Amino acid sequence: MDERAALALLSGRVAGAGDDCAVFDESLLTTDMLHETTDFPDGTTRYTAGWRAVAASLSDVAAMGGAASAAVAIYAAPAFDEDELTAFVEGASDVCESVAAEYVGGDLDTHEEFTAATTVLGRAENPVLRSGASPGEAICVTGTLGRSAAALRLFERGDDARANELFRFSPRVAAGRAIGQQATAMMDSSDGLARSLHQLADASECGMRVSETLPIDESVTEVADDPDEAHELGVFFGEDFELVFTVPEDDLETVQENSPVAVTRIGTVVEDSVALDGDRLPDRGFTHG
Amino acid sequence: MDERAALALLSGRVAGAGDDCAVFDESLLTTDMLHETTDFPDGTTRYTAGWRAVAASLSDVAAMGGAASAAVAIYAAPAFDEDELTAFVEGASDVCESVAAEYVGGDLDTHEEFTAATTVLGRAENPVLRSGASPGEAICVTGTLGRSAAALRLFERGDDARANELFRFSPRVAAGRAIGQQATAMMDSSDGLARSLHQLADASECGMRVSETLPIDESVTEVADDPDEAHELGVFFGEDFELVFTVPEDDLETVQENSPVAVTRIGTVVEDSVALDGDRLPDRGFTHG
Repeated sequence: MDERAALALLSGRVAGAGDDCAVFDESLLTTDMLHETTDFPDGTTRYTAGWRAVAASLSDVAAMGGAASAAVAIYAAPAFDEDELTAFVEGASDVCESVAAEYVGGDLDTHEEFTAATTVLGRAENPVLRSGASPGEAICVTGTLGRSAAALRLFERGDDARANELFRFSPRVAAGRAIGQQATAMMDSSDGLARSLHQLADASECGMRVSETLPIDESVTEVADDPDEAHELGVFFGEDFELVFTVPEDDLETVQENSPVAVTRIGTVVEDSVALDGDRLPDRGFTHG
Repeated sequence: MDERAALALLSGRVAGAGDDCAVFDESLLTTDMLHETTDFPDGTTRYTAGWRAVAASLSDVAAMGGAASAAVAIYAAPAFDEDELTAFVEGASDVCESVAAEYVGGDLDTHEEFTAATTVLGRAENPVLRSGASPGEAICVTGTLGRSAAALRLFERGDDARANELFRFSPRVAAGRAIGQQATAMMDSSDGLARSLHQLADASECGMRVSETLPIDESVTEVADDPDEAHELGVFFGEDFELVFTVPEDDLETVQENSPVAVTRIGTVVEDSVALDGDRLPDRGFTHG
């Protein structure tokens, strides 16, 4: 059973699961695990790891249009170095502060591989699900795509300072709150744009036609060997945690005005199939380890 | 830096951390990680693992006198076997149901070692801290001590059925709610009775004198080679998740009447030092990996 099948099993068995967060009453609860071999390349500082791990869970709250209340994290490592632990907690605290959430603590675990498990509690009166898109609506993304892919290339090249900076993404909590007033379906792009579009299409039982220029981050153009590779990194790689959402045409301008980050329209919801520039868009991306 | 020093660092830096749960507003949030090499001996079923992992976090909420609202879990394993995952989710759901909490979902992670990371959200208007004990008060424990130690011996002997049963402890949420009305200081015995008494003594700046017969579980007497070993397993081993608490003498009877599980008085809070039957009780136990 692969991860997606297992997730489907999990969501089928558990009430409230299956979207970016579990929803109960007006609360949102989401949990994630990141670890060294798959999520923190050589060169990632503990400050960046703390920031990014908590930010991944904050992004899930953002993806449902929620406000983030509190976060906890488990820091698991073979040994506890004071400077590393302090840096991790500072990163976790700082990203919480950036979205008006409170980092309230966590736990430690002795673990062979450096691993961070994070949980964020949020709230949303009307959480935005993945299932509300209708044909004719606009498809949009926040910010730019491909920053994490570019960061990985920069880590490989040893440009750790810039790579760490790109890796510390801003979770779109404020944008999600603003966009959530009008959005009909929303999720984050952690599995890549292509997979996000397929997941929104599946949940909403419709299709997605991407026809506009994508907001590929300039760092991607810089690290990619050619435009094809830049496109690949921007569309399929993921790990960017931007919001991908649908909104009625009439509300698009309002959303663009109210969002604190750039909102780019990239296409239109259609009856069926997911296509980019006229070609079927493969449902592939980065399956998170 | 060992785990306790690291935890102290964590709690010193993070507002709300340092007790069994993080506390903010009237909410409690707690997170734990258990993994195969240190927490799930050979023979532990995935049902038991799901139950026990979530129960460990539920116990933290119980230890502050809180009600448990919702739980999430991350299931991390090298591969996702449908039967194993289903059993894990059933165990997690069943233990939540036993304490009127909702298991609302979780996440998956591909990980070399089977690992479970759990988070529970609770609420308490007046959470019971570790720091409120005063000389003259009674020291009490719920239930019996040493069940997990006995379970480990039974796993070693291949009596997996009984071992799994002992391993699926009942988190003392209802008892914690009842006891929390009168308790002045409380925590769970996950690190063992001895260490719990030291932690309560340190947080409350007082001493603990244990002078009564301890409620050692009968399974311990059965697996131990002699009474000394039974005492060792009951006092130091831990992983039992019973509540250890202090209460004014005048309230002891009320607490014993209101608690849904047996409450045994084991001693008296004193001015300083932690002693058992007249001897200094070493501050040692199981340091969780």
